Amino acid sequence: MKFVLAPDSFKESMSAAEAVAAMERGVRTVFPDAECVGLPMADGGEGTVDALVAARGGALVDAAAQDALGRSLVARYGYVADERLAIIEIAAAAGIQLIDPADRDQRIASTFGVGRLITDALDRGARRFVIGLGGSVTTDGGAGMLHALGAQLFDADGRDLPGGGAALARLARIDLAGFDPRLLDATFEIASDVTNPLLGAEGAAAVFGPQKGADDETVRELDAALAVYARVLAEATGRDVAGLPGAGAAGGLGAAFLACFDCRLRRGIDVVMQAAGLSARMAGAAYVFTGEGSLDAQTLGGKTPLGVAEVAVSADVPVIAFAGRIGDGAEALYDHGFSALVPIVAGVGDLPQALRDGPKNLERAVATVCRLLALRR
Amino acid sequence: MKFVLAPDSFKESMSAAEAVAAMERGVRTVFPDAECVGLPMADGGEGTVDALVAARGGALVDAAAQDALGRSLVARYGYVADERLAIIEIAAAAGIQLIDPADRDQRIASTFGVGRLITDALDRGARRFVIGLGGSVTTDGGAGMLHALGAQLFDADGRDLPGGGAALARLARIDLAGFDPRLLDATFEIASDVTNPLLGAEGAAAVFGPQKGADDETVRELDAALAVYARVLAEATGRDVAGLPGAGAAGGLGAAFLACFDCRLRRGIDVVMQAAGLSARMAGAAYVFTGEGSLDAQTLGGKTPLGVAEVAVSADVPVIAFAGRIGDGAEALYDHGFSALVPIVAGVGDLPQALRDGPKNLERAVATVCRLLALRR
Repeated sequence: MKFVLAPDSFKESMSAAEAVAAMERGVRTVFPDAECVGLPMADGGEGTVDALVAARGGALVDAAAQDALGRSLVARYGYVADERLAIIEIAAAAGIQLIDPADRDQRIASTFGVGRLITDALDRGARRFVIGLGGSVTTDGGAGMLHALGAQLFDADGRDLPGGGAALARLARIDLAGFDPRLLDATFEIASDVTNPLLGAEGAAAVFGPQKGADDETVRELDAALAVYARVLAEATGRDVAGLPGAGAAGGLGAAFLACFDCRLRRGIDVVMQAAGLSARMAGAAYVFTGEGSLDAQTLGGKTPLGVAEVAVSADVPVIAFAGRIGDGAEALYDHGFSALVPIVAGVGDLPQALRDGPKNLERAVATVCRLLALRR
Repeated sequence: MKFVLAPDSFKESMSAAEAVAAMERGVRTVFPDAECVGLPMADGGEGTVDALVAARGGALVDAAAQDALGRSLVARYGYVADERLAIIEIAAAAGIQLIDPADRDQRIASTFGVGRLITDALDRGARRFVIGLGGSVTTDGGAGMLHALGAQLFDADGRDLPGGGAALARLARIDLAGFDPRLLDATFEIASDVTNPLLGAEGAAAVFGPQKGADDETVRELDAALAVYARVLAEATGRDVAGLPGAGAAGGLGAAFLACFDCRLRRGIDVVMQAAGLSARMAGAAYVFTGEGSLDAQTLGGKTPLGVAEVAVSADVPVIAFAGRIGDGAEALYDHGFSALVPIVAGVGDLPQALRDGPKNLERAVATVCRLLALRR
């Protein structure tokens, strides 16, 4: 009997790989000889590198880079040498988790470090990229990344612009002559669940700026600066991408990818599932187990279990989702092909204890489900 | 497809009948046409009357009685007219829950009210009795009950003894001449999980007295008084029951039943299961669902789910237990034939909320299990 184990991480409790391990222990309690195919999943955000390195048999690589404020750091990404495939979470360099709240300043925050990671991967031989766009602290439209990759950004007087979104208000010209030529051979799969355009009320500054610490005035300032940037970028590339879905992802980093790269921007879980080869691994499976920390109505918004369920349904394999919490509205998931939604907690308890007990509870819940599946009448 | 639904109550959350109803809703979510046989269970303690009235199609009867301190009250018991069967929980008259902690005094607490309930049932026509022995606040050896049923208790001077355990120290003679003659035709099934003898270190006063508010001195006084009582009772009945298992149940009330009645004392769940006809109702069932508030190592001590599981195993029907909490040590239950132990909570939360959500959570957990059972590969 073959089980595909494809959970996301259980936030603050266990990584996707740890969840796979707990699931496998649970399965083996009941079916010691089962074939367990573990595929740790992610939705394009945190855990994407680990998931795809595990699925493709790649390695984790440490590279010199910098955070959004220009401070040096060592960032980690994934590399699968025989596929020339790099997997990069932009949060590793431009992430909000790297900057203390008091130090966050979107006016100057830059994606330069993301460009350095891409360069490092190109040096290593990468020509295919999977990029997870989640978790940025920047709103620079990806200008910093383009600069790191060889683009030059000038003001009206021909002077180099400083980094950060605010300076883009003075942008007059982008020169792509120095753009890394290896990028012409590179393809990018961009994982992002954000479909916002670059500008305006639904744009990068207005919708995501406040979460990253911008006040109303800064939002207006950045939105206006991004409008200048969009116009100049369109002149330089011949592509007007500001209105495209996803151009506003990661503080407008989506726009830079769309304008300057051979890229496809898709729902995070779809990028991860495809890169992990989930569909192919599902052949002959009796059951698929997925899960994450919480299942509720929001899960319908493209989170991992839903994506896994879609693939499982196509393959006609029953899919069972486990979660630390089955919230209100989760019942709607039954309309999307889930065979069962199973909470893993064993009783009343506080959150810290439940987070600590996550692996034990998941193992037990999986074993219990397997006991039920083993009942044949 | 036939389901037998035989849960105990989920303490402080739902009665056994409410649990049955929640289970049935859960089953029907997945199998709308299933045959659901609901048999609310109990272990001889609280809920026994309700469970057996439901199972046998009887009625609840209100009778004038008194509590352990002699205060008038209306007590409820169950009566199944066509079987001449009365179901009495002794706690309805001699229960600890009827007396404020500050007013509890085991020296004077009496089971007289229990005798009044039995008389009421005899008047109504009862000749078969199921008696649940749990929850007493008395330690009078059942002397009060015997007195209410017509026995006379005298001191050495031929004076009537007052009620309560302490006065038994002065007991010289029991006269059973006035004992209700209808009791000669009556049979008693006594439900008790207590197997303690009447006297000594394992006896009624020493083991259960402290829980009912007795200090060390009172325990010694009551144990000595019960020793006098045991000797006089043996003289009156020709049966020396003090050392029998269960004689110490309910403050020695077990001894009175064993000495003066045609009775059989058994594990509570066995009495209830037999009276409810669980074994016969299990014929042709696909699954048995049981449960209670908490499942843990203590469940092995004769609680409802274990009893239901034993019957289910004999009938070769898979048994699945649901609980608000699956505690440490519960895994040992798998050695006793359970197919699965399923926690019903949907996530982290506090106890009051979980108790309020009990029926909803049980319904959902049962539905989830049914979804899994519906998966056939």
